[in-house]
Amino acid sequence: MIDRAARAASDAFAMYGWLSGRKKGELLRAIASRLEEHKDAIVNRANLETSLGVPRLQNELVRTCNQLRVFAALIEEGSWVDARIDHGKVDVRSMLRPIGPVAVFGASNFPLAFSVPGGDTASALAAGCPVIVKAHPAHPETSKLVGRVISEVAPSGVFALVEGFEAGIELVEHPLIKAVAFTGSRRGGRALMDIAAARAEPIPVYAEMGSINPVFILPRAMRERGAEIAAGLHASVTLGVGQFCTNPGLVIAAETNAAFVDDLSNRMSATACAPMLTPSIADAYRAGVEHFASLVDRRAFVEGGAALFTTNAPTFLRHEELMEEVFGPSTLVVECDSHERMLDIARALEGQLTATIHANDGDDYQDLAKILETKVGRMIFNGYPTGVEVVPAMVHGGPFPATSDGRSTSVGTRAIERFTRAVAWQNAPDAILPEELKESNPLGIRRMVDGITR
Amino acid sequence: MIDRAARAASDAFAMYGWLSGRKKGELLRAIASRLEEHKDAIVNRANLETSLGVPRLQNELVRTCNQLRVFAALIEEGSWVDARIDHGKVDVRSMLRPIGPVAVFGASNFPLAFSVPGGDTASALAAGCPVIVKAHPAHPETSKLVGRVISEVAPSGVFALVEGFEAGIELVEHPLIKAVAFTGSRRGGRALMDIAAARAEPIPVYAEMGSINPVFILPRAMRERGAEIAAGLHASVTLGVGQFCTNPGLVIAAETNAAFVDDLSNRMSATACAPMLTPSIADAYRAGVEHFASLVDRRAFVEGGAALFTTNAPTFLRHEELMEEVFGPSTLVVECDSHERMLDIARALEGQLTATIHANDGDDYQDLAKILETKVGRMIFNGYPTGVEVVPAMVHGGPFPATSDGRSTSVGTRAIERFTRAVAWQNAPDAILPEELKESNPLGIRRMVDGITR
Repeated sequence: MIDRAARAASDAFAMYGWLSGRKKGELLRAIASRLEEHKDAIVNRANLETSLGVPRLQNELVRTCNQLRVFAALIEEGSWVDARIDHGKVDVRSMLRPIGPVAVFGASNFPLAFSVPGGDTASALAAGCPVIVKAHPAHPETSKLVGRVISEVAPSGVFALVEGFEAGIELVEHPLIKAVAFTGSRRGGRALMDIAAARAEPIPVYAEMGSINPVFILPRAMRERGAEIAAGLHASVTLGVGQFCTNPGLVIAAETNAAFVDDLSNRMSATACAPMLTPSIADAYRAGVEHFASLVDRRAFVEGGAALFTTNAPTFLRHEELMEEVFGPSTLVVECDSHERMLDIARALEGQLTATIHANDGDDYQDLAKILETKVGRMIFNGYPTGVEVVPAMVHGGPFPATSDGRSTSVGTRAIERFTRAVAWQNAPDAILPEELKESNPLGIRRMVDGITR
Repeated sequence: MIDRAARAASDAFAMYGWLSGRKKGELLRAIASRLEEHKDAIVNRANLETSLGVPRLQNELVRTCNQLRVFAALIEEGSWVDARIDHGKVDVRSMLRPIGPVAVFGASNFPLAFSVPGGDTASALAAGCPVIVKAHPAHPETSKLVGRVISEVAPSGVFALVEGFEAGIELVEHPLIKAVAFTGSRRGGRALMDIAAARAEPIPVYAEMGSINPVFILPRAMRERGAEIAAGLHASVTLGVGQFCTNPGLVIAAETNAAFVDDLSNRMSATACAPMLTPSIADAYRAGVEHFASLVDRRAFVEGGAALFTTNAPTFLRHEELMEEVFGPSTLVVECDSHERMLDIARALEGQLTATIHANDGDDYQDLAKILETKVGRMIFNGYPTGVEVVPAMVHGGPFPATSDGRSTSVGTRAIERFTRAVAWQNAPDAILPEELKESNPLGIRRMVDGITR
């Protein structure tokens, strides 16, 4: 089964990898249109399987179609390939070309936007790579329904859906698979990284493995906007039952502030219970919360609901486990007694998807920002980490263990680069060159010619 | 020793990673100027250690200084950082930032251009990464001399030289090292890949591990230009005693051609003996040549000198060992009896740095080119693979096992991207943004603003 899908993908690559941006764009737009045609069935099925609620899933479907169309527009325009031409002693021309068939592992927490029709699939298809998706077991019927919708418009071999733990491993081990994209746990991501690195031909793995997304609150911001920040943080921590990889699981307060903690605590306590994605996610959440409770001063912990912990900097720095992600609506506030303590915490952090700084005029955060910049993919100022805009500048990535490959992003147009490699043609006849590299620039794309981009 | 160098590099990164392109450019230009000031001492020392000859080493020094200045010009201009700004619901800005301290492993066969002051060092320093070079044992005194020259102009911690096998391993294992660049054998490169992948925090390894650089000669090209191609191939195979990673170790002739083989054989036999880089490289060459001789029809084999073998397609396809690199002035001609046989060989090839097609008008090579494009970093037409121009469009890379990371190149300006990662700032005050992302564009670089590049 896996071998057949991989061979079909590899065969299809010989054709699909050379389709024009216009043709690939048509496919992405057709997938988006068909998802919209079937939106009620898809959203209802996803709601049954994930309990995420119809409004959220309707938004997710809109976002998913938007992503597909963003990548369609990118490849229709065409300049993304970084075409370069040098008319030197020898004529050298190069551009980004698709890497080959890609295995995509759908996420549990976004049954559409980071699953079968999600950003990994969209960016790999846009690059010119056939995709084999390994469906997440948390929403098998949604995956199959969406998989059928895509299969009806994709050329033969360009898209396939497989299921099961073993199938996923076989896929990553298969010699015809040339890259892997994954969104999920650190344990799962690391396992795929290790399998891919041990292959006879190691291949890149883009695993987005979550993050605790630290939020630093500086003294003046705390004094002048403490209540507003408590409200914003509460909304961000509890959004979607806290089941986002950008969920802020750690808050570092530059000074002790009882009013802020009480305020946040009251808000967390008042949060209505809501079902989580799967029973095993709920079990893991309960276990994580209980473990945290054993390590720190428990301030507020609502059975089955949102959880808030507080501790001081020395306790936090002593317990590495407190830097682990508790996937769900839980956060830990660390109160610091000095600026230097706050910097110590920043220095002790592992790689993160995001870090946030709340600072008002007069707050000194230059040194903090410099430290955090080396640890994260996205620095946020006076905001909250949840909500990842699908724009060209977005970086949804970060140093290990936030992702397996801190050079990459899984959201935004740069995500397409993950599934490409540069190829050069030297002294090639114009007729054999890809359109993007022909002397006359028939596609009218932006190119670097003899060092000048135009 | 390694720990001290890594800590110094990490400390220096906090400063050096934020230096302007102009300042980093000054460093690269200062290194080039000082290499030129000391060129006689450096070339003489390198000649004593490598036997490569003064003219070749003088050229290599010129090339090395040129590379340093190419990267200086790139970062002085500044647009390479791929700055992007989106003024949306939230303000998101991103650019490529340096990845952190880099370990560079010098190559045996280029004591300058791919060693201490070579392309890996130049591109990492250009990106903003401190560099620790592990000197190649084939030219220790050259390495130390050049290392001193660089250390005299580099800020403290930004450059260090270490020696020894164990030191190299410690370096790749050190938690403060964030990327590795290597040029050498497949065994050595794979060992570093495995060490890096097994770290608590896996890091990228850019290992350039050589290649057999297949040259395909189509029927009309053979008939109409056979003698010319034999002369060109002979020059390419024997250049620098065959000690180039772009050395053409495999020639696939679309049809049997006794005159061509005789011609090439005569030229190879007439090649003067020359010393190789090290006794162990010479030993490995002799062993490789003897192994090949046991597998194929031996046509010409000059004791201690250039070696030519011929065989037919079925024999070649039966012996995987014939696809292994014999580092030195040796090549294998495979004679095919049909176009389809030639395509079978193309399909059977592993990843390569280059592939070359010799074709005249009327030769059909579209299908061959499509197959080869998926296997190589650079496709050459009617030329020879040796000689890698340092130009923006160059790709000196290729799928595994040619390199560890087929997405990258170690020559040309794209090489800088290896040592970077994208970082985003969201709703950041203008004052804290890097110059490249400030609203007023003080550096006047090319940026993508709201999706439009200008």
